[in-house]
Amino acid sequence: MERREFNRRIGAAALGTLAWASGGSAAARPPLTIDAERLRANLEALSRFGRTPDGGISRVAWTAADIEARRWVMEQLMAPAGLEVRVDPAGSIFGRRAGSRPELPVILFGSHLDSVTNGGRFDGSLGVLAAIEVLQTLADRKIVTRHPLECVVWSNEEGEHYGRGLFGSRAAVGEIDPAELEEKDEHGVPLREAVRAAGGDAGRLAEALIPGGRIEAYIELHIEQGGILDKAGIEIGVVEGIVGITRYQVQVTGRANHAGTTPMADRRDALLAASSLVLAVREETVREPGRQVGTVGRLLVDPNVPNVIPGRVNLVIELRDLSLETIESIYRRVEARARAIAEQSGTAIEMARISLHEPAPATPWVRDLIAREAVAAGFSMQLMPSGAGHDAQMVARIAPMGMIFVSSVGGVSHAPQELTRWEDAARGCEVLYRTVLAIDRR
Amino acid sequence: MERREFNRRIGAAALGTLAWASGGSAAARPPLTIDAERLRANLEALSRFGRTPDGGISRVAWTAADIEARRWVMEQLMAPAGLEVRVDPAGSIFGRRAGSRPELPVILFGSHLDSVTNGGRFDGSLGVLAAIEVLQTLADRKIVTRHPLECVVWSNEEGEHYGRGLFGSRAAVGEIDPAELEEKDEHGVPLREAVRAAGGDAGRLAEALIPGGRIEAYIELHIEQGGILDKAGIEIGVVEGIVGITRYQVQVTGRANHAGTTPMADRRDALLAASSLVLAVREETVREPGRQVGTVGRLLVDPNVPNVIPGRVNLVIELRDLSLETIESIYRRVEARARAIAEQSGTAIEMARISLHEPAPATPWVRDLIAREAVAAGFSMQLMPSGAGHDAQMVARIAPMGMIFVSSVGGVSHAPQELTRWEDAARGCEVLYRTVLAIDRR
Repeated sequence: MERREFNRRIGAAALGTLAWASGGSAAARPPLTIDAERLRANLEALSRFGRTPDGGISRVAWTAADIEARRWVMEQLMAPAGLEVRVDPAGSIFGRRAGSRPELPVILFGSHLDSVTNGGRFDGSLGVLAAIEVLQTLADRKIVTRHPLECVVWSNEEGEHYGRGLFGSRAAVGEIDPAELEEKDEHGVPLREAVRAAGGDAGRLAEALIPGGRIEAYIELHIEQGGILDKAGIEIGVVEGIVGITRYQVQVTGRANHAGTTPMADRRDALLAASSLVLAVREETVREPGRQVGTVGRLLVDPNVPNVIPGRVNLVIELRDLSLETIESIYRRVEARARAIAEQSGTAIEMARISLHEPAPATPWVRDLIAREAVAAGFSMQLMPSGAGHDAQMVARIAPMGMIFVSSVGGVSHAPQELTRWEDAARGCEVLYRTVLAIDRR
Repeated sequence: MERREFNRRIGAAALGTLAWASGGSAAARPPLTIDAERLRANLEALSRFGRTPDGGISRVAWTAADIEARRWVMEQLMAPAGLEVRVDPAGSIFGRRAGSRPELPVILFGSHLDSVTNGGRFDGSLGVLAAIEVLQTLADRKIVTRHPLECVVWSNEEGEHYGRGLFGSRAAVGEIDPAELEEKDEHGVPLREAVRAAGGDAGRLAEALIPGGRIEAYIELHIEQGGILDKAGIEIGVVEGIVGITRYQVQVTGRANHAGTTPMADRRDALLAASSLVLAVREETVREPGRQVGTVGRLLVDPNVPNVIPGRVNLVIELRDLSLETIESIYRRVEARARAIAEQSGTAIEMARISLHEPAPATPWVRDLIAREAVAAGFSMQLMPSGAGHDAQMVARIAPMGMIFVSSVGGVSHAPQELTRWEDAARGCEVLYRTVLAIDRR
C-alpha cells in the first residue's frame, strides 16, 4: 500500500475495524534512535537473575531472584538514567523523569520483571528494559518533554505466586480485595508479607491507587507470545485490544459401570459425552470467521481406571475474543450442542461460568499513533488482538492505553525456548520511543 | 420354544453358536431341593464381615475382615457339613466330600470371599455359600456321589490388594511369577507374608498346582454383574465363555501452547485428537453386530490447565469379546482411525498393547449340561458371555469349565447397591446342585 494512502486512512481512523497491514520499507528506514546494543546487553545481564539450568528464567514474583532483579534494575539502570525511583505500596516500581510542564499528566510505559517457573527471558523484561532505554536515550540526547514520563515495573504480573496475577496494576486501579492479602503461599507466608519483602506495604495499599486523569496514556511493549507475527514475517504488532476471557466449568454425569459387563447400548459414558463436547467447542469456535479462540485445556475423568466406564468428567471451556458478543454467541451454540449431546448419550451436562474478564480495547488514538510511528520508522506492521492478558488491561480502566507487540519466534513463550530476535526487540523499543514523543507533542 | 425341540437341540450341541433362550415355566417347576432360607441366612451372616457404614462390604483379600470371614466359613459352615477342610499354599480353601469311587477326578465348584473396597454382598460370596449349600444338601439327603466333590474359596480374586487378582486360581494353574511374591502393599508388607497370614505358604506355592486330569469339571456360580439378565427378566445365565480382554496404551502428542495467543488454525491440540479417538473407539466397537465392548476408562491430560492447549494425552483402550479375532479386527479399524486423526490434527498417536487375556470358552458339554438342568428346573435361561474376569478362566486351562450366572438388579456390582434377588440366588444354587449331580451321573 502507498504510504500516503495509508496515512490518510490512519487519519480517517479506519484502523478500528480493519486489520491494516503495512509492508514496511527497508530503503525508507531511518537509523534507530535508541541504542540496540545497550538494550541487548541489559536484557542479557538481567537474565542472570533466576536463570535455570536449561536456559530458562524462574523469577517468580517476590522470590529472591525477583527481588534481586528489581534491585539491580533500580540501582544499575534507573538511577544512572537520572530517574526518580519509588516503590508503591503494592510493590510496583516507578522511575520518573520530569517534564517541562509538571502540571501535565504523566506518560506511563513499562511492563513486569517477574516470570513463570522456567519461563523465558523476554516476557515482561523486554517491556521494562525498553522503557528504561527510552528514558536513557532521552537523557543522552538531553531532550526535555512537556509531560513527565515514567517507566513502571508492575509487581506480580504472572500470578505464579499467590495464584492471581496483575497484582501491581490491579492495585493501581483499586481491584484488590482485602481478603486476597491474607492468602498464603505454599510456605504459609501471607501475601501481605510477601509484598513487604518487595518494598511494598499492604497496609497502605489504597495509596497505590492512581486517580483518573493522572495518566496521559499508558504504553506497553511486550512479546506477542503467539506465532502470528512470526508466521507472517511482520515486525510490529499494533494491539487492537486485549481479548476478553470467559471460563465455564462443565460437569458431565453419566453412570460409572463395569467395562466388561455393561453392553454398549446400556452405557451412559461421561467421557464419550465429554469427548463430543470437546469437538463441539472447536467446531462452534471456528464456525464464524474471526480470531476468536476456544479451548478445553483441563479435563478430569472419574474414576479414571481402564475397566470402569467413566461416571463423571469435569472440564473447563475457555473462550477468548475482542468481542464479548462473539464469546457469548459461541457459548450459546456450545450450550445447545451440550444439550443435544446429553440427550443422545443419556448423561447430564451442567455448565456454569466461573470467570469473566471483559475485553479491553486499545484507545483508538493511542493505537493509531503507534501504527503511524511504526510505519514512519519503516517497519512492517499489522493490527492484531492480544490473546494473552497484560497489565495494560487494568490500566485501560483509568487511562488511554496502547500496546506494541514484537514477534515471538515460533510463537513460543512461558518456556526456556522463548525467543525474540534482537532486531525485533530493538524495533519495538524504537516504536515505543517514537510513540512516547508523539504523545508528548500531541 | 417347545421343551422337546430344545432338548433335541442341546443334544445336538447346537448351543455353541446360538444364543438359545428358554422362557421357563412356573407350572412345570419342581420344588427346590436346596434350602433357600439357609442359603439366605448364611449370606446375611457372612455379610457382617467387613460391612461398611453404607451397607457395602470391604473384605479386601488378606485383611482382617477377609481372614475372619474365611475362618467363620471353615468353622461354621464347612466343618458342620462334614467336609474335610484344607488350605493350600496360595491360601485357597478346599472342602472335600468323599465319593464312592475315590479314584475318580474331583468335581470342583466355588468362587471367592474377598471383595473390592466398599463392594457388595453377593460378588463371590454367593458362589462360595451356594457350593457349601449344595454339599450340605447332599449331606442332609445322605446322597453319596461317585466322584469326590470339593467346594473351593479361591484367594484374592479381586486383586484390590497387591494389584493382580485371581491369585489362588493362578497358583492352581502355575501362573504366579516368583517376583510377584515380593511385591509390597501400601504398608510395605510383601505378598509372601500376606499369604502366610491367610494360612498359606509362599515357599511351597508349587504344591498349589493342580495337575491336569485331577478335576472332572469346575463349575462357578456368580452374579452377572451386568444388566442383561435383569433387563430381559431371565433367571439363569449359562455362560458361553469368559471374554478375552486386551488393553492398549495410547499416547497422543500435540504441542502445548498458550490458549490465548495460538490461533485455532495453528493448534496441535492433543485433547482434540484424543476426543476424536474416544468417539472412534465406540464407533468401531459397535460397527458390527455382537456383544463386544470397547471402553476408554482412563484418560490423562498434560499439562491440564485451562489456559494451555493440551500437549499430551495418555489413555487406555480396553476391548473385550469372546472372540480374539473380533477384538483384533476392531483394533485394526481403531488404529486406522487413529492414523487419520493424527494426520488431520497434526498430532502423533502411538499405540501399544499392554495386556492380553485370551478368551476362555466354557467347555461345550459342561455348558450344555448347565443349560439342560436350568431348563429341567423350570427356570428361564439364556446363553451369554461373561464380560468380567473370574477364577473360572484360570481353571479352564486344566479342566472342563462352566459358569452359572444369576441376575444383578440394575446391573450394579462392586458397589454397596449390588443386589441379587433371594429367589434368583436360590435358583442359581439349585442349578449348581443339579449340575453337580448330572456331572456325577454322566
